[in-house]
Amino acid sequence: MNAATLDVAGIGNAIVDVIAHADEAFLAAEGFAKGAMTLIDAARADALYGRMGDGIESSGGSAGNTMAGIASLGGGGAYIGKVRDDALGAIYRHDITALGLRFDTPPATEGPGTARCLILVTADGQRTMGTYLGACVSLGPEDIDSATIAAARITYLEGYLFDPPRAKKAFRKAASLAHEAGRLVALSLSDPFCVGRHRDDFRDLVSGEVDILFANEAEICSLYETQDFEAAAVAVRGHVKIAALTRSEAGSVILADGAAHKIAAAPVARAVDTTGAGDLYAAGVLFGLTRGLPLPICGAIGSLCAAEIISHVGARPEAALDKLVASAGLV
Amino acid sequence: MNAATLDVAGIGNAIVDVIAHADEAFLAAEGFAKGAMTLIDAARADALYGRMGDGIESSGGSAGNTMAGIASLGGGGAYIGKVRDDALGAIYRHDITALGLRFDTPPATEGPGTARCLILVTADGQRTMGTYLGACVSLGPEDIDSATIAAARITYLEGYLFDPPRAKKAFRKAASLAHEAGRLVALSLSDPFCVGRHRDDFRDLVSGEVDILFANEAEICSLYETQDFEAAAVAVRGHVKIAALTRSEAGSVILADGAAHKIAAAPVARAVDTTGAGDLYAAGVLFGLTRGLPLPICGAIGSLCAAEIISHVGARPEAALDKLVASAGLV
Repeated sequence: MNAATLDVAGIGNAIVDVIAHADEAFLAAEGFAKGAMTLIDAARADALYGRMGDGIESSGGSAGNTMAGIASLGGGGAYIGKVRDDALGAIYRHDITALGLRFDTPPATEGPGTARCLILVTADGQRTMGTYLGACVSLGPEDIDSATIAAARITYLEGYLFDPPRAKKAFRKAASLAHEAGRLVALSLSDPFCVGRHRDDFRDLVSGEVDILFANEAEICSLYETQDFEAAAVAVRGHVKIAALTRSEAGSVILADGAAHKIAAAPVARAVDTTGAGDLYAAGVLFGLTRGLPLPICGAIGSLCAAEIISHVGARPEAALDKLVASAGLV
Repeated sequence: MNAATLDVAGIGNAIVDVIAHADEAFLAAEGFAKGAMTLIDAARADALYGRMGDGIESSGGSAGNTMAGIASLGGGGAYIGKVRDDALGAIYRHDITALGLRFDTPPATEGPGTARCLILVTADGQRTMGTYLGACVSLGPEDIDSATIAAARITYLEGYLFDPPRAKKAFRKAASLAHEAGRLVALSLSDPFCVGRHRDDFRDLVSGEVDILFANEAEICSLYETQDFEAAAVAVRGHVKIAALTRSEAGSVILADGAAHKIAAAPVARAVDTTGAGDLYAAGVLFGLTRGLPLPICGAIGSLCAAEIISHVGARPEAALDKLVASAGLV
């Protein structure tokens, strides 16, 4: 096994976020479940965009957000995801590479445009998402570069990748390449309804291929079809080396080697927009793991990164996370 | 004179902002004067974008920002500006119309793409801008609709409009249409270097056509080629009905009818990004004027709107300004 030259390789749906404020009545009128991610087609995306308020645009995508966090923490890595060769795709590529991350996946030159996620943020800071997958549907196993995966300490996969049809194969190819190279595989369950859509595949993957699992309460409960968080926690313990389970304001718990490390949430003056909170928690934990830090410290870095994202609109860090973590005395 | 059906008609360069953090060394290496706006061509915009950090995109443009503020305060109006029929142009149009503002200017169907302003925000919250005018250069007098101008209590013009060659004619046409209809004409000087590029035209306009003038210290001093703010204030008094002169943290002074109203700046917990501060001050003052409020109250609304914009990244309001102003007891 060669020495790793990258910290993390992240694979996900490459999506540009369009973020606007909305009230609960608007969510209801549009038929969205508050706090969830709903897949929408191009026509619905256009119609919804026409009705939603003025917004800001920012590169997003769950694993993309996590990779941005890792870069801001001082980590190195590569992103794999599919954009179209259009204006939004150029913005997405710029934002990833400007962070010092590698992004070698060629853009699609035909077919649907770069994916968009229309994000409606309510006054309580909660976000509700309508995602048009666009060019993401063309990501396939041919986009997984074995040298990149072999070079990364951890290969990180977002669960949302199970939605576009060919990405599942890319997902499995990346996981086995990582293990062949003696590396770790991490997975985020992404969304309870996404877990519901692909439960058998996820269980199969978690029990066979995943070393590090990220999930929130609703996601881990959905995976094991239980309403009892403790029961779900017991179930996952046997399958993965490390399970980091988040519980919003109640913080998180990291399960590993028979131990359970309770992690406090970091204080947030005002929850402006929770978009990306889970993604940035994962960034903090993964960064800590690549640096060989103890699990309670990894979790505390995750909490701090999540708090930064919640304090402003948008899912990419505004503050330099490396300085934030250093001034909190965590590294 | 018919009753006005619009509060403000705003005319400006329709520009999409791309906002990223940068340090002073980067500004120096790129040859930018900190705090200023530099016009750049397409090639330099592409090269700069390639070197700058990851960012967010948001509709911008000085008068566009002001109109967004007026809409958020509960005012009605129309925006006149030129985008291209491309992806960024569609975003710009969406954001203006989603605020309830009219935007009837047809997009350019050929020529350069929608304008972009590359904004570099330093750690002290100051912004430095490189503007590629793109499709804005095709705005001309044919885009000024006389019914819209006649319907608006105030026609508001941004000084930056003097940069694209044909907009000057549009500018003068709008001013005379407004006066023919018995309405007021307001102008923002926009930028001290823009004033320097077009000083004679600006002086001519201020002494002949402008009723309400917005300028910061550097701009009003540049207009009258003096380094003495008091001398510039004396000079402007004779030319306009109302002059609102801003002095950053020192607040502003509104000169009218021989009186000088000193206005305090509103407190800002942390100056995150000053982009749009002047534009939103103008929004508050103009809104107050359309409601017939006393000048010190108009100024206080302006200060409050500026403080909201400074407290976050981006030049469009994130909070509902009408509620902010109501809870401050100003309306």
